[in-house]
Amino acid sequence: MPSKQDWEKIAAAKRAALAESIPTEFRIPQDQLPPESQLNVTTWPKESGWFTPKELEITESTASQILKKVASKTWSAEHVTAAFCKRAAAAQQLTNCLSDAFFDEAMQHAKALDEHLQRTGQTVGPLHGLPISLKDNFNIRGKDSTVGFTSLVNDPAGYNATLVDVLEKLGAVRYCKTNVPTAMMIAESVNNTFGRTVNPLNRKLTSGGSSGGESALIVFGGSPLGVGTDIGGSLRIPAACTGIFTLRPSAGRFPTQRCRSGLAGQEAVQSVNGPMAKTLDDITMYSKAIIDAQPWKLDPKMLPIPWRSAEPPKKLKIAVLWNDGICLPTPPVTRALKETAEKLKKAGHHLTEWDPKLHQTAIDLLGRMFVADGGKSVEAVLAPTGEPYRPEMQQYAEATELGVHDMWKLHLERSELQRQYLEQWMSHEGLDAILAPTTPYSSVPHGDFKYVGYTGVYNVVDYSAVSFPCGVAVDKEIDRPVADYKPQSDFCRAAHDSYNPELLHGMPVSLQLIAQRLEEEKVLALTDMVLQATQ
Amino acid sequence: MPSKQDWEKIAAAKRAALAESIPTEFRIPQDQLPPESQLNVTTWPKESGWFTPKELEITESTASQILKKVASKTWSAEHVTAAFCKRAAAAQQLTNCLSDAFFDEAMQHAKALDEHLQRTGQTVGPLHGLPISLKDNFNIRGKDSTVGFTSLVNDPAGYNATLVDVLEKLGAVRYCKTNVPTAMMIAESVNNTFGRTVNPLNRKLTSGGSSGGESALIVFGGSPLGVGTDIGGSLRIPAACTGIFTLRPSAGRFPTQRCRSGLAGQEAVQSVNGPMAKTLDDITMYSKAIIDAQPWKLDPKMLPIPWRSAEPPKKLKIAVLWNDGICLPTPPVTRALKETAEKLKKAGHHLTEWDPKLHQTAIDLLGRMFVADGGKSVEAVLAPTGEPYRPEMQQYAEATELGVHDMWKLHLERSELQRQYLEQWMSHEGLDAILAPTTPYSSVPHGDFKYVGYTGVYNVVDYSAVSFPCGVAVDKEIDRPVADYKPQSDFCRAAHDSYNPELLHGMPVSLQLIAQRLEEEKVLALTDMVLQATQ
Repeated sequence: MPSKQDWEKIAAAKRAALAESIPTEFRIPQDQLPPESQLNVTTWPKESGWFTPKELEITESTASQILKKVASKTWSAEHVTAAFCKRAAAAQQLTNCLSDAFFDEAMQHAKALDEHLQRTGQTVGPLHGLPISLKDNFNIRGKDSTVGFTSLVNDPAGYNATLVDVLEKLGAVRYCKTNVPTAMMIAESVNNTFGRTVNPLNRKLTSGGSSGGESALIVFGGSPLGVGTDIGGSLRIPAACTGIFTLRPSAGRFPTQRCRSGLAGQEAVQSVNGPMAKTLDDITMYSKAIIDAQPWKLDPKMLPIPWRSAEPPKKLKIAVLWNDGICLPTPPVTRALKETAEKLKKAGHHLTEWDPKLHQTAIDLLGRMFVADGGKSVEAVLAPTGEPYRPEMQQYAEATELGVHDMWKLHLERSELQRQYLEQWMSHEGLDAILAPTTPYSSVPHGDFKYVGYTGVYNVVDYSAVSFPCGVAVDKEIDRPVADYKPQSDFCRAAHDSYNPELLHGMPVSLQLIAQRLEEEKVLALTDMVLQATQ
Repeated sequence: MPSKQDWEKIAAAKRAALAESIPTEFRIPQDQLPPESQLNVTTWPKESGWFTPKELEITESTASQILKKVASKTWSAEHVTAAFCKRAAAAQQLTNCLSDAFFDEAMQHAKALDEHLQRTGQTVGPLHGLPISLKDNFNIRGKDSTVGFTSLVNDPAGYNATLVDVLEKLGAVRYCKTNVPTAMMIAESVNNTFGRTVNPLNRKLTSGGSSGGESALIVFGGSPLGVGTDIGGSLRIPAACTGIFTLRPSAGRFPTQRCRSGLAGQEAVQSVNGPMAKTLDDITMYSKAIIDAQPWKLDPKMLPIPWRSAEPPKKLKIAVLWNDGICLPTPPVTRALKETAEKLKKAGHHLTEWDPKLHQTAIDLLGRMFVADGGKSVEAVLAPTGEPYRPEMQQYAEATELGVHDMWKLHLERSELQRQYLEQWMSHEGLDAILAPTTPYSSVPHGDFKYVGYTGVYNVVDYSAVSFPCGVAVDKEIDRPVADYKPQSDFCRAAHDSYNPELLHGMPVSLQLIAQRLEEEKVLALTDMVLQATQ
């Protein structure tokens, strides 16, 4: 048992062990490191000369491209894996995005896959030879899943998460796990064990959270595809902060069993997991592969819904959520919404507006559900090592536990909100999707990510949603702070005050396309149509 | 506000009002009433001469037959409805199975349906003109849903349950609601407001619960099809006690929104609803009609899974649950299992055994989930009128409320049980179904229904299940008490001690066929195959 106040020693040792686990040949020589003043390090792999042209070619390919080249034996899984291990190692050294690295095992697995293909002429499955990075909370037998807590260091999992088994069966190669915030309940990726992950596009900014190790790794090129989780926006927020794609599925499509949870046993709003990648095609490819694997035969919470080809109408009906009445989007996000809506209109789609009348209630409910145990789950994992609460988690320190009777009443309030949200949707006859900001921000300086309402509402109603980079980047000349600004709330004021066009210049802006519950195939197909109309 | 100790007055007044609501012409003259000593009153409608041959013909038809005859204008919805109102009125007078009757409204609705068909040549939907009875907890605007509590008398619903709206849209005629036990949490249908429903097949026996008003009404012929609910066996137990069919669907197929719950907001194990009828065909017909109505567009908890044609293999693999290690089935149930299994084997199906190693854990979990609020939900509805706990509900009076943190731990235990149950299922390669007792009993004398473990386990894992009369009836000569009986538990001892072959002689025995979660279409098709092989 660790004693109280041991947490800093444990954290330092864990960080040292992680650094040590990076093979010597993947450690960047001091004189090749970019200067600390270099904010955008995504350009470094090409500029530095540290990667071979082949390594660059591999790590700048999409997951789908890689799968084709490995399946056709143009590339070996071994070479592909080696290239991503090296680039992931660089990502770790420049952005602190990993929580674990096990490159040797990955190389052995990749070689075995190559041998299988050579011997049988067949791939083992649709993800044959694709390196896939995993958020820290996916249990892998023999490896830690600390979700940022020092008391969970050196507490290796006794089993694999079901998704890990599925991915292995499909042929994916696991090689690293990625950093998260404490308990995965902060919208930036910072914790007392591994510290803070920074955004490779601008190291003064956050890569978001809680799947912000993933988003940093992917946008840096250190992973062709990663898997994160989302209970209040934890896939979509980091995807938006780095300009990559993600799908937040409804509960029941992708297996969640045997993962480490930040709030274990909390079910009033369900955590889900989903893919993160640089292209929508890769998101769709992964989603189909997982569902085709029939995860309901392994995880009793999964729904036996096979992959369904979406056949959306040619002209969509889309309701725009301009702002949620709680926190105005910052200027580049509002501009991105406007430009996207205009292009959709020009392409002949029917645009209408989404009234956010239910959003305040939804966001309040989400907050109450997260702390319904009075923060006891978090406290129980902090206490053994005397680890302090992160300042971002003050609400857990201050929460009062509900009794089950009051919890049942909270369920009723949430169910009524879900009923009203569906009723509102159905009142827009033929509505295909809502177009909304993913967050009020493009990204934010570390510590400034305060508002998760735009994502969180869709966790409460469990709708399917894609966050996608909409092609707009922050322009410090155009996206000036609003002159006649009137805050809608403290969140709104904070977002306004933190907005810094000079610092954010060039950062990608993402939007969210939301379809109904369990319409994953549809929302992916609709996003493709939106991209075609706007880019 | 009612004052304390008012409950008996309120109950008496409610019962009087219910009796008064039966039209004079439907009140059985004293001299035509069967003697109290007549236990089986299902024969009375034919014997008494109180019904016309046409009324008998109508009320002894299946739901599917009625629908055809109404659609083809052979029968009018008006005549059909009138016949069932009359027979339901008789059922009420002989078995106390109703909680509400609104025959005038039903007749007006039926006439409007006839006019529609006459005018347009079209039915309004697949249930056009079919009288459907509803368990008391289905809210109907303007009508009480007391679920047996006196404090809920004269508290009419402000809205319809979603299912009520769906049924109306499909053309069904509602005409009565049926009795339940207090809070629907007893396996017999008895409460302080309406008293006790008795079994029309033997009035000394229970018709089961909690949907025991329905089962009594249906087996008496007072309803061609009714809808009940099930959180621990409340559809299957009353169906088994009366020898009718029911489907307990997994959560998410039939809309549950806006019903009165016994434990409102309790979600750790979900209450579901389903049809009860005298034939399997009627169960299937209803199920398809509801799912074809796309209830997910109205109730956000419903799953967008369309009706799927089941294509079971010609030779099934069925695991028999001979006993659950907690409560041995009484002799006629064990015999029914044996005879059914033998016939299935003879028909070429592959039989294996189901090890009940997880059942004790499942049953313990179910009990803990029901009282996790410390009985506060029940107490809150008893208190306003000073209504006492029914003796069957002592566990609610004695329960200690959990905090949410412990509730989350309970969720984890339940999820682990679900994982293990699925793993066990998948370990039987190609398993199609489990064949099990529905209950340890055929039926029992009033007050003797103690053990719900055979049904409850499938609520915990949320599997689809059909309870069906297997063609075996209790035979006092054959089904003698076991000589070398060794009780497995107090439940087992109680079932043994209560077993009275003389009293039960002739009562039907039901079994349960269980498929996996969300395999409603499959379990219905499999039951049809089992019936073909055994009858």
